[in-house]
Amino acid sequence: MQDQIEFYCEFASPYGYLASTQIEAIAAAHEREMLWRPILLGPIFKTTGAVPLAHMPLKAEYMVQDIGRFARLLDEPIGWPSDQPTNGLYVARAFYYLDETDPESAWALYSACYRRYWVDEEASDTIDSVVEVADALGLDPDDVRDGMEMQETKDRVRQETDAAMFKGVFGSPYIIVDGEPFWGLDRLEQVNRWLETGGW
Amino acid sequence: MQDQIEFYCEFASPYGYLASTQIEAIAAAHEREMLWRPILLGPIFKTTGAVPLAHMPLKAEYMVQDIGRFARLLDEPIGWPSDQPTNGLYVARAFYYLDETDPESAWALYSACYRRYWVDEEASDTIDSVVEVADALGLDPDDVRDGMEMQETKDRVRQETDAAMFKGVFGSPYIIVDGEPFWGLDRLEQVNRWLETGGW
Repeated sequence: MQDQIEFYCEFASPYGYLASTQIEAIAAAHEREMLWRPILLGPIFKTTGAVPLAHMPLKAEYMVQDIGRFARLLDEPIGWPSDQPTNGLYVARAFYYLDETDPESAWALYSACYRRYWVDEEASDTIDSVVEVADALGLDPDDVRDGMEMQETKDRVRQETDAAMFKGVFGSPYIIVDGEPFWGLDRLEQVNRWLETGGW
Repeated sequence: MQDQIEFYCEFASPYGYLASTQIEAIAAAHEREMLWRPILLGPIFKTTGAVPLAHMPLKAEYMVQDIGRFARLLDEPIGWPSDQPTNGLYVARAFYYLDETDPESAWALYSACYRRYWVDEEASDTIDSVVEVADALGLDPDDVRDGMEMQETKDRVRQETDAAMFKGVFGSPYIIVDGEPFWGLDRLEQVNRWLETGGW
């Protein structure tokens, strides 16, 4: 079996969200499995010294325009939630708790929260909001709630973020294909071409 | 006549260099003229608080890989000069001095220096090196040297950088098409499509 496509994303990143809506089709076209890896950019930015785009004059204004234009080009709906930047900690915890036993449900929950926040503009930054989405998906809400509060889950989020940074991940989305790193929504075409050609 | 394509670039930016090798063909395909606008990102970064990519852990390493990969995809040669980041001040001065009377020669000189630095890895960050390139292009070397030292020329570089920032320019390359801003080498396909369709 060929390697999975590693997909790193931060919940607060609209570029990460939009890429998440595209990458599965690219993977499927090349018969690759996905390895979803939500991370927290906060601790990574502390190490790299990066400043969130939304906090930079000029760049922040441009980003709003760029995101809307890119989403229209992809024909993907996107909103502009007023509570940015949001906190993806609890979604990440729920993801990694479920990922231990059921990776498919883990991503189903994460991506449902992603859509709820970035399309429906509903806050998804509390334990209750994440549990509500889990419930709507038919997952056991009490189990998800308990799982999010386990020390092992909290540790796992930290470990996965550290492991990502160790691999060079510094932004969202960040995609690794057969060891080759691609950063940014705007690199999806190169990811697709890399899968098609084996590199250039 | 339709509006010119405004192209802002920083001499020290390899993404700016690579985009400069592509944008003329895009403009020509849509019968547009180019308005070349070299700028200095240093003063702009002071305002926006941005950190040069080359100074950021992880991002800097990724950039080296990304630039090489992107250049191969475009089939454009690129080197990796050891004296990065270089200083584009004198090239910008020569450009704006010539631009007053002869915009075509101004860009011929700037782009020759761009290639000399990014392809041939030869320093182009002194008055002498820029004058040498001007001489090789058949321009009057003494005239270019004198022009670079005129107060009006120095002021013009500052004014153009300020004017760019006022328009929202915060990085390199930065391209404005009919009032629509596009940042980055990776937006050239969107620039092309925008010219083709008039927007989406």
